[in-house]
Amino acid sequence: MSAKTKVTFPLILVNLKSYLESSGRKAVELAKVAETVAEDTGVCIGLAPQFVDIGLISKFKIPVFSQHIDPILPGAFTGHVLPESVADAGAVGTIVNHSERRLELSDLEAVVERARSVGLISVVCANSSKVGMAAALLAPEIIAIEPPELIGTGIAVSKAKPEIVSDSVESIRKVNQHAVVLCGAGISSGEDVSAAITLGSRGVLVASGVVKAPKWKKVLLELAEASVRA
Amino acid sequence: MSAKTKVTFPLILVNLKSYLESSGRKAVELAKVAETVAEDTGVCIGLAPQFVDIGLISKFKIPVFSQHIDPILPGAFTGHVLPESVADAGAVGTIVNHSERRLELSDLEAVVERARSVGLISVVCANSSKVGMAAALLAPEIIAIEPPELIGTGIAVSKAKPEIVSDSVESIRKVNQHAVVLCGAGISSGEDVSAAITLGSRGVLVASGVVKAPKWKKVLLELAEASVRA
Amino acid sequence: MSAKTKVTFPLILVNLKSYLESSGRKAVELAKVAETVAEDTGVCIGLAPQFVDIGLISKFKIPVFSQHIDPILPGAFTGHVLPESVADAGAVGTIVNHSERRLELSDLEAVVERARSVGLISVVCANSSKVGMAAALLAPEIIAIEPPELIGTGIAVSKAKPEIVSDSVESIRKVNQHAVVLCGAGISSGEDVSAAITLGSRGVLVASGVVKAPKWKKVLLELAEASVRA
Amino acid sequence: MSAKTKVTFPLILVNLKSYLESSGRKAVELAKVAETVAEDTGVCIGLAPQFVDIGLISKFKIPVFSQHIDPILPGAFTGHVLPESVADAGAVGTIVNHSERRLELSDLEAVVERARSVGLISVVCANSSKVGMAAALLAPEIIAIEPPELIGTGIAVSKAKPEIVSDSVESIRKVNQHAVVLCGAGISSGEDVSAAITLGSRGVLVASGVVKAPKWKKVLLELAEASVRA
Repeated sequence: MSAKTKVTFPLILVNLKSYLESSGRKAVELAKVAETVAEDTGVCIGLAPQFVDIGLISKFKIPVFSQHIDPILPGAFTGHVLPESVADAGAVGTIVNHSERRLELSDLEAVVERARSVGLISVVCANSSKVGMAAALLAPEIIAIEPPELIGTGIAVSKAKPEIVSDSVESIRKVNQHAVVLCGAGISSGEDVSAAITLGSRGVLVASGVVKAPKWKKVLLELAEASVRA
Repeated sequence: MSAKTKVTFPLILVNLKSYLESSGRKAVELAKVAETVAEDTGVCIGLAPQFVDIGLISKFKIPVFSQHIDPILPGAFTGHVLPESVADAGAVGTIVNHSERRLELSDLEAVVERARSVGLISVVCANSSKVGMAAALLAPEIIAIEPPELIGTGIAVSKAKPEIVSDSVESIRKVNQHAVVLCGAGISSGEDVSAAITLGSRGVLVASGVVKAPKWKKVLLELAEASVRA
Repeated sequence: MSAKTKVTFPLILVNLKSYLESSGRKAVELAKVAETVAEDTGVCIGLAPQFVDIGLISKFKIPVFSQHIDPILPGAFTGHVLPESVADAGAVGTIVNHSERRLELSDLEAVVERARSVGLISVVCANSSKVGMAAALLAPEIIAIEPPELIGTGIAVSKAKPEIVSDSVESIRKVNQHAVVLCGAGISSGEDVSAAITLGSRGVLVASGVVKAPKWKKVLLELAEASVRA
Repeated sequence: MSAKTKVTFPLILVNLKSYLESSGRKAVELAKVAETVAEDTGVCIGLAPQFVDIGLISKFKIPVFSQHIDPILPGAFTGHVLPESVADAGAVGTIVNHSERRLELSDLEAVVERARSVGLISVVCANSSKVGMAAALLAPEIIAIEPPELIGTGIAVSKAKPEIVSDSVESIRKVNQHAVVLCGAGISSGEDVSAAITLGSRGVLVASGVVKAPKWKKVLLELAEASVRA
């Protein structure tokens, strides 16, 4: 396997969710575009595809994330996602506790530890700054603040609820100096990204705003450029 | 993508669960062995690896199964397994409702329908003959009877609880003439497979009995030969 | 404890869900009204209150149902609902697998058995006629067909989707001659109840249509009278 | 309803789980004993019975806790536990996130807020000191450290893993000066309680050690006396 692409900040992390019907072929297309934009702008663009597509996408020079892992050791866990398996397939990290796939608090501690032990970066999603702070105590590398009510709306968290982003940045710093804060929900334009960066976010989580856009290159370029211009 | 390998009976379906730490490399090794044994004996040997390894394994001339799919349409379902994604990656079918990843009854109906609509064979696991019968009404292609208390014990269902296998075969036939019945739990020897086939099972689900065996080829050969000799 | 009130058909089963803020006092008020209407009309009116209110309500001459029980034996199950505990408190039966509290298929088999073993009548909710049929194989006393998309809408299943009621009655009879079929979702008028009874339903599940009605007595009277006039 | 009994410390909180088959009658017996011991020793003894028994037990001069509540508002939540309903029935507080009924992190924030808004004390269980710290950020009144591997073993956390208790006390104080720390798991003797108190715990959670003891009075007396002698 080729060396994994390192994560740098600002980070544009694109969550593909289950949006793409021909998931493998389309994810590869998106990865190619992301790779080009990343090379052209110098901005780190990560992709979180369906589990089965992690291997395909990890051949490109972009960091690949799992959308979830389970807090399990190798064993009798049919239908669960072994952290080792996604790391082996080429992922550099994993989203966990997304509002569409939430974890119990105790599992969250375990999952961050398991991720670390297999060399995966944890991106813990949090629906509020208090939850973000609680998550920060578990020492993940990245915390992504995503108010669920804005997800998929096109109304950007960084513009509709700027205080949740700045509050999170500040309160998370109090309990964990090392964790990087991202924000997400409703992000679809360069302006949304600039606003996020200005508030102290080190990048964004974006999903439908990119995946459902008519021109992937155009929107990724806009987001990437805004992230460094801010 | 190459044409998918067809499922025939008797079927030896190997569930890799989360047993293999270096999941990709090891799963490929096991697939190679399974392919050889399948070619040598003419017996169908299926593998159900970790999600991320479905693509890797589907290059071999053996049918590949997912360990689970979610009853979702393309959309905002982070961390869920889109049926289309595993079909695209090369799987011919999917295990669902395994005792380690059980489904709600209504989701089970939805998941069997989604599997069919994307061309995946459903292998619905059932912990009892009554549950098997209920599952059969949802019209999956295959029902696998697995008493959870025997899973991973090495005590074969076909020898320790033969009546659950024969009862299931009989009662499932009453409500669904087309569904194929497999059995599983504790299967590790040719004798276990012969007993299963004699009871009306059209094959077996096997996991630790193969995956944790010191010599994969030896045990797969023994199981495959027993399945046609019975 | 006084003798429990027997369930007869037609049955108007009122699911209080979590609608009532001052749950105990209000549930007692509703129970009094239901008792009066049941005595006046001779129609069986059951109530399914919050767990904590089962004991309070069971003093009235109406059958009381739990909204859910867990498939557990006495033991270390903090926060779960022991079937014995609701039977002891005076419930005659229990709703299970409601679309707002769905059960895994294997748990559903276990829960129906546990209910029977402690003398509770099972009312298994099903979101489709196929699920209703599968549930019927598990031998509950009552199956309630409730298409989730109509719950709480005021659009009655018996008028908007009459075929799902008649199909369910017919297909459930094929696999279980003894199970009684009710229907629910959107029921709020006497006409809705008449339509349900005409389609072969032996009563209705009703929730907001009664609990949120300005005059409980008026609506219960209307439903009860319609159930015997149909 | 009579005034609720206030919670004071040290607190012996007895979780009845689902241990008692004749749950109502037996819970009343245990409540009587607890009331007597509490009066004789001046030590606060709380009981957390099955949901349906909360009303029965709240007539005694002991504080009653729910074993769980759901983070819901009054509405369409069949089979869920409305915080208002348990408060109305006489509970003064609620256990949440017990290892036998764990909550997702975001629900935990919501549940602590809902509890507060209806006047219920939250006792958040945590399986580790890190999880306890994360929980403390959500501002519950009480955090109970319970290593799941010791629950029900009779091997007391305060003697087998004293460091987890003292670490929790210390690290929780860093993020929340007001939260009271209890510990639990394996507690069954006065010595276990003394050890817990000495380590900074303000009381204990106890379950099988009391509920399954042959003589409730003897063991409760022993625990209560040890809690003030320590």
